[in-house]
Amino acid sequence: MALYVEKYGGTSVGTAERIQAVAETVAVSARQGHRMVVVVSAMSGETNRLLDLAAQVSEQPSSREQDVLLSTGEQVTIALLSMALENIGVPAKSYTGSQIKIITDDIHSKARIQSIEATRVNADLDEGRVVVVAGFQGVDSENNITTLGRGGSDTTAVAMAAALNADECRIYTDVDGVYTTDPRIVPEAQKLDRITFEEMIELSGAGAKVLQIRSVEFAGKYNVPLRVLSSFTEGFGTLITDEDSSMEQPLISGIALSRDEAKVTVRGVPDKPGIAYSILGPVSEAHIIVDMIVQNIGTDGLTDFTFTIPRADLDRCRELLEPVVKSLGAAEIIGDSDLAKISVVGVGMRSHAGIATTMFEALSDKGINIQMISTSEIKISVTVDKEYAELAVRTLHKAFDLGEEKNITACPD
Amino acid sequence: MALYVEKYGGTSVGTAERIQAVAETVAVSARQGHRMVVVVSAMSGETNRLLDLAAQVSEQPSSREQDVLLSTGEQVTIALLSMALENIGVPAKSYTGSQIKIITDDIHSKARIQSIEATRVNADLDEGRVVVVAGFQGVDSENNITTLGRGGSDTTAVAMAAALNADECRIYTDVDGVYTTDPRIVPEAQKLDRITFEEMIELSGAGAKVLQIRSVEFAGKYNVPLRVLSSFTEGFGTLITDEDSSMEQPLISGIALSRDEAKVTVRGVPDKPGIAYSILGPVSEAHIIVDMIVQNIGTDGLTDFTFTIPRADLDRCRELLEPVVKSLGAAEIIGDSDLAKISVVGVGMRSHAGIATTMFEALSDKGINIQMISTSEIKISVTVDKEYAELAVRTLHKAFDLGEEKNITACPD
Repeated sequence: MALYVEKYGGTSVGTAERIQAVAETVAVSARQGHRMVVVVSAMSGETNRLLDLAAQVSEQPSSREQDVLLSTGEQVTIALLSMALENIGVPAKSYTGSQIKIITDDIHSKARIQSIEATRVNADLDEGRVVVVAGFQGVDSENNITTLGRGGSDTTAVAMAAALNADECRIYTDVDGVYTTDPRIVPEAQKLDRITFEEMIELSGAGAKVLQIRSVEFAGKYNVPLRVLSSFTEGFGTLITDEDSSMEQPLISGIALSRDEAKVTVRGVPDKPGIAYSILGPVSEAHIIVDMIVQNIGTDGLTDFTFTIPRADLDRCRELLEPVVKSLGAAEIIGDSDLAKISVVGVGMRSHAGIATTMFEALSDKGINIQMISTSEIKISVTVDKEYAELAVRTLHKAFDLGEEKNITACPD
Repeated sequence: MALYVEKYGGTSVGTAERIQAVAETVAVSARQGHRMVVVVSAMSGETNRLLDLAAQVSEQPSSREQDVLLSTGEQVTIALLSMALENIGVPAKSYTGSQIKIITDDIHSKARIQSIEATRVNADLDEGRVVVVAGFQGVDSENNITTLGRGGSDTTAVAMAAALNADECRIYTDVDGVYTTDPRIVPEAQKLDRITFEEMIELSGAGAKVLQIRSVEFAGKYNVPLRVLSSFTEGFGTLITDEDSSMEQPLISGIALSRDEAKVTVRGVPDKPGIAYSILGPVSEAHIIVDMIVQNIGTDGLTDFTFTIPRADLDRCRELLEPVVKSLGAAEIIGDSDLAKISVVGVGMRSHAGIATTMFEALSDKGINIQMISTSEIKISVTVDKEYAELAVRTLHKAFDLGEEKNITACPD
């Protein structure tokens, strides 16, 4: 018998009926004798309802009290799911972050998990109970309630799985797995049976929205097999694991598209040491995340310096750089949000040459101009004019033969 | 500077605006330099919303999970009130029952407080913070969430006041104090400036709904001065304290009316030892609370045995007694829910004779027939036909001169 940690998000537990459906799903595994831990989010809509109340009483609610407020959302869900399980004859027990002792640091609203006490959960599992855990929350060393920030319930599930040495951590979402690319753009996109942690991290970072990058990193660090699957349809989803020799390595696993970035170019910068720091220093100090960076080799002692940032930060970034441009004696700042980033990801790149060539050739054949290029060990990203975004994705999906049918790997159960 | 524990119920914190109004009230005392602890209930309507969700997922929710669910109600309020206080420049910090360490027994949904750790609260008060505490909830020795049952937030406030050795515990409600009787029945009813714990306990037990009897008993036991006042209107309310020599003792403090009782008579019972036990044993085993008990002296070896119980339990009580009546060879069971109980309460009874005579004479003058009589050291209760309930209350209010104007005692502040 195996130990599974399952996580159900806000949509999956959005109504009493859906909570009952989750109970039925969990009951199947529990009745097979598996040890089951279930991590849940707040019912969809609840967090916004609470934030709205907070906004009515305070212009700037303290993050400590906001965490006290928001953590009630998951607490409601754990009680309801435990009741629903017991109602169909499955013994269950709920735990808040505080009760499990999910200890975090004291950074309210984006706390990081430091430790989890597994003793009590193991005792319940030994007695045949399903343990229902509130996601997204913990307590600091002084028992103040903390929350983990975006995607926090995924992180709770992975951390529980690591602490309990679970056989698998299953993230139930509203999609049935990880695809070679967005099926809304490429109808032939294939669901992947398996993918490595590294690839998933690169895909998440490049714009794929299935999982928060932080929980995948956590799973990779503790080598917790992670399965993404749908809470609404049947299927084995996608298993995210360590790269192992038995895994057949496809050249490319997936193609990610991000439209959330903007490009900033500082033109006519004197080409001398320290330019990158002068420009990017103020940007990173303002907590604006810089992704791709390109500096052309200058002519006439002048160069252009280009980088990408989240589109939402474009205006603020321009303001920050106005004085820098003046003090550097640079010509001008150009902001451009009409671009898309397309990334090709695959561990196969490590051992295969020519991926970049195939990519650039395919884009060129369609007349798509590449603006910027950035590479990592298992990823190549390019930016193109946003009008070409879908065409570029479809072109690359075809160029790397990702639309082929693949056999479904049996679920290890 | 004094230490006050204030409690605001569900109606007082029912909306964001009302929470802001409570913050303004608390801020006045805090700015005067008083040490302030505020205990709050769930926003009105919230508990029912949560119970409704529970009913949707389970036919018979476990009391453990119901406590996990319901305790979120007060947790939302403590966060919002702390935010509202901070928003007007008053430093505040919220605590759940678990965080304060309000330790209770493990009887879910009607737990009793065993201990409270005051250290952390005192540290916050020393640093000039208002401490906002979730009422109605605690944790058992294994950190399972418990709730205290009806009127639980009042009990939390009194227990906090006892643990912190507060100068006064103030219960804010939707009435402006304790009255000599229900002003809806007797418009001349007077608000009492002071009343003793004992009197308040008897009045609560006899049907006055201002305070739950349990919290008054708790306050009396630990000698915590308790003040009942309105969160909607100005005023000093009613102070409930120990009887002391400086207090002018009125003969009668108040008259309570209860319409929630029913009378059960077992007729033609053989008059022999053990009758009371044979009849009341099964009733109390079924957790039906028996109030007044009357056994007439029998003639011909037969007697009638009469007692009162909550009206809601009448049908169940009859079912329970059917076999008992048969085995005793009694004639029949008569149930009667057309009665009202009127109680006259006052510590002055201890030292004054003739109260009962005055009471019976006044009722007799109006042609009101007394059915049953029961007395305690400071209380006389009678039951009458419910049609005479209001008339009886008005008659007694006048007979004991309770409608006179009294001077308002200054609030010790």
